[in-house]
Amino acid sequence: MKKIALLGATGSVGASTLDVLANHPEKFTLSTFSFYNNIQKAREIIQDFSPQLVACGFLEQAMQLKREFPKITFTSGMEGLIQAAVFEEVDIVLTAITGSIGLKPTLKAIEARKDIALANKETLVMAGKWIMEKVHEYGVKLLPVDSEHSAIFQCLQGQDAKALKNLIITASGGSFRDKTRAELVNVTVDETLNHPNWSMGKKITIDSSTMVNKGLEVIEAHFLFNVPYENIQVILHRQSIVHSMVEFKDGAYIAQLGASDMREPILYALTYPKREVMIAPKAFDLAQINTLQFEQMDFNRFPLIALAYEVGKKGGSFPTVYNAANEIVANAFIARKISYLAIEEYVIKAVNEHQEMQELNLEKIIEIDLATRRKVTKWIKEMEEKL
Amino acid sequence: MKKIALLGATGSVGASTLDVLANHPEKFTLSTFSFYNNIQKAREIIQDFSPQLVACGFLEQAMQLKREFPKITFTSGMEGLIQAAVFEEVDIVLTAITGSIGLKPTLKAIEARKDIALANKETLVMAGKWIMEKVHEYGVKLLPVDSEHSAIFQCLQGQDAKALKNLIITASGGSFRDKTRAELVNVTVDETLNHPNWSMGKKITIDSSTMVNKGLEVIEAHFLFNVPYENIQVILHRQSIVHSMVEFKDGAYIAQLGASDMREPILYALTYPKREVMIAPKAFDLAQINTLQFEQMDFNRFPLIALAYEVGKKGGSFPTVYNAANEIVANAFIARKISYLAIEEYVIKAVNEHQEMQELNLEKIIEIDLATRRKVTKWIKEMEEKL
Repeated sequence: MKKIALLGATGSVGASTLDVLANHPEKFTLSTFSFYNNIQKAREIIQDFSPQLVACGFLEQAMQLKREFPKITFTSGMEGLIQAAVFEEVDIVLTAITGSIGLKPTLKAIEARKDIALANKETLVMAGKWIMEKVHEYGVKLLPVDSEHSAIFQCLQGQDAKALKNLIITASGGSFRDKTRAELVNVTVDETLNHPNWSMGKKITIDSSTMVNKGLEVIEAHFLFNVPYENIQVILHRQSIVHSMVEFKDGAYIAQLGASDMREPILYALTYPKREVMIAPKAFDLAQINTLQFEQMDFNRFPLIALAYEVGKKGGSFPTVYNAANEIVANAFIARKISYLAIEEYVIKAVNEHQEMQELNLEKIIEIDLATRRKVTKWIKEMEEKL
Repeated sequence: MKKIALLGATGSVGASTLDVLANHPEKFTLSTFSFYNNIQKAREIIQDFSPQLVACGFLEQAMQLKREFPKITFTSGMEGLIQAAVFEEVDIVLTAITGSIGLKPTLKAIEARKDIALANKETLVMAGKWIMEKVHEYGVKLLPVDSEHSAIFQCLQGQDAKALKNLIITASGGSFRDKTRAELVNVTVDETLNHPNWSMGKKITIDSSTMVNKGLEVIEAHFLFNVPYENIQVILHRQSIVHSMVEFKDGAYIAQLGASDMREPILYALTYPKREVMIAPKAFDLAQINTLQFEQMDFNRFPLIALAYEVGKKGGSFPTVYNAANEIVANAFIARKISYLAIEEYVIKAVNEHQEMQELNLEKIIEIDLATRRKVTKWIKEMEEKL
């Protein structure tokens, strides 16, 4: 029986994870979970899975739920999140929180020698160097949950790592893949949230349309697989059937494919190196799908993927700034405070203005992350005041 | 330095193998090779690779070459082929002979504890059960060279074998994939030899158009990977880019893809589990290829693939009969003795008339193979005499 901590249980990846756990009660126990805001969903999860510890976003929620479920321990805030991440009986922590808030609990979980199923790509983007050092120091497994990274991880199993040539990450192209830049001027939040292939959270769907999501994935892949940026390629693949692939020096490509179903990489991360039967799988018939297309990524059409390579190659805290700025502006766009193209504008501005600190360490990275957020938030406020 | 015996050096797979060896002189030595008929090519190979032993098809060739290359040992006939297969210093025997003549030398090589790089699929089709028993008994590696089986073998590396669901073999569809059965009545040998994707030997190109080649591959896969026929699927894939794939119970598919270049699976078989750099690789750019298509196999259009499953499931000597009959009729078609559709007719007739022997063993299998050849040859002669 594998004991799971699920951080971010009420989001999209959280829901898929709970479905996986519910389908394999003989394999998995949900020992603890966290949620931010959705107390009603949290209540249902408690009833369905009877966890021992629940980390709430806010103290009031913890107090409310304690009255309803007196036998369960409730905590709240960042401290509560960390308590869930290091909960003693837990074997593996699935980090499904969106954004840089995932960094600290992930770090603490590694230090508590928990294996990590990583769905929070911001953790590696912000602080990949330090996280990977910790992973090696504490000898834990860091298992990717992102479908692209899970695909690459699956493709690399049993292969000659020395003969690896390129990682090839597929990109659906997002909601606006067929729009020119001129057509992007007046797009709305609702249009942006209409992803062609995947049903995901709001922020990641926005990031998918700006290609920031793919940029974050490139940086994540760099750290996760220890591959130089020159050997990480992005290819447009509208159908999202091939989840990613690897190329070897002998000319062979190994690809992982399947339905657009997050339960698959989640199940794999939780059972690795074994595979379990997927209960009620999404229908998948390649002959019926019939056509898979592949196209070159257009780095002029999507400047933020070009910028991701740039910040990645610069290294240090540049990816941190890229990610922090994007998190603020993507959420500002969702809150209808800025236009779609302003997302790009502010991210580029934040990166351009950034000056690298000397003798970087994890504390300074967290400082830079916060400073970037404050700065970009201020820009947006100033712009709103002008209007 | 890996020491290679190459059986069938002057054919198509032989030529690809020699190219691989020539490109990696620091890795491979050609210790010995065999050829059947093409003495001029044999001469060139001797000059390029300086082998110690050469097995000729006929005694006269051996005597002729001995005069030209007095320091090299020459042998001939089946005995010579076996001498090459068991040549003492050899590490791995690549069997690139076409047809059932490959069986005996392969068996002898296994008994001499040589690893086998198997490009001769007829060996497993004829006598898969007995070959696999020998492989396990003598503890040798049996490495597939067929691009489809190499692909499956590559996809299975590092994966949870217990979670395997299906093998999915891709089929280009051959020269006549877009012709109806009615349109097949008057097709010529030259039309049949015009394969859309692969440049191969004549017999295999004919077999590809009748889907017998895919049928043989299904039977080969059954023995090689120990998978029931119910879990071996064939899918039409015109571009021959995805060389084959495997499906797991968790919904994941792993596929191997790349250029249509036989040097790739050959190099992999010779370096497994490592991979070496492919020198002068064929150009391969998925974004330029752009479209991969997958379609259901039409078992009515291609009755000989349906028959392959049937003989495979019946087991015993039925695949032997299927293969032997096809070998005779495919060559009769190449020799312009029978019409294209007569290939199907005679193979079906041979299988239908076959009655299984009791207490089958390898000797009986070889007898049945020969008896089938005699019988089908007689049918063709009788038909010719009637005309």
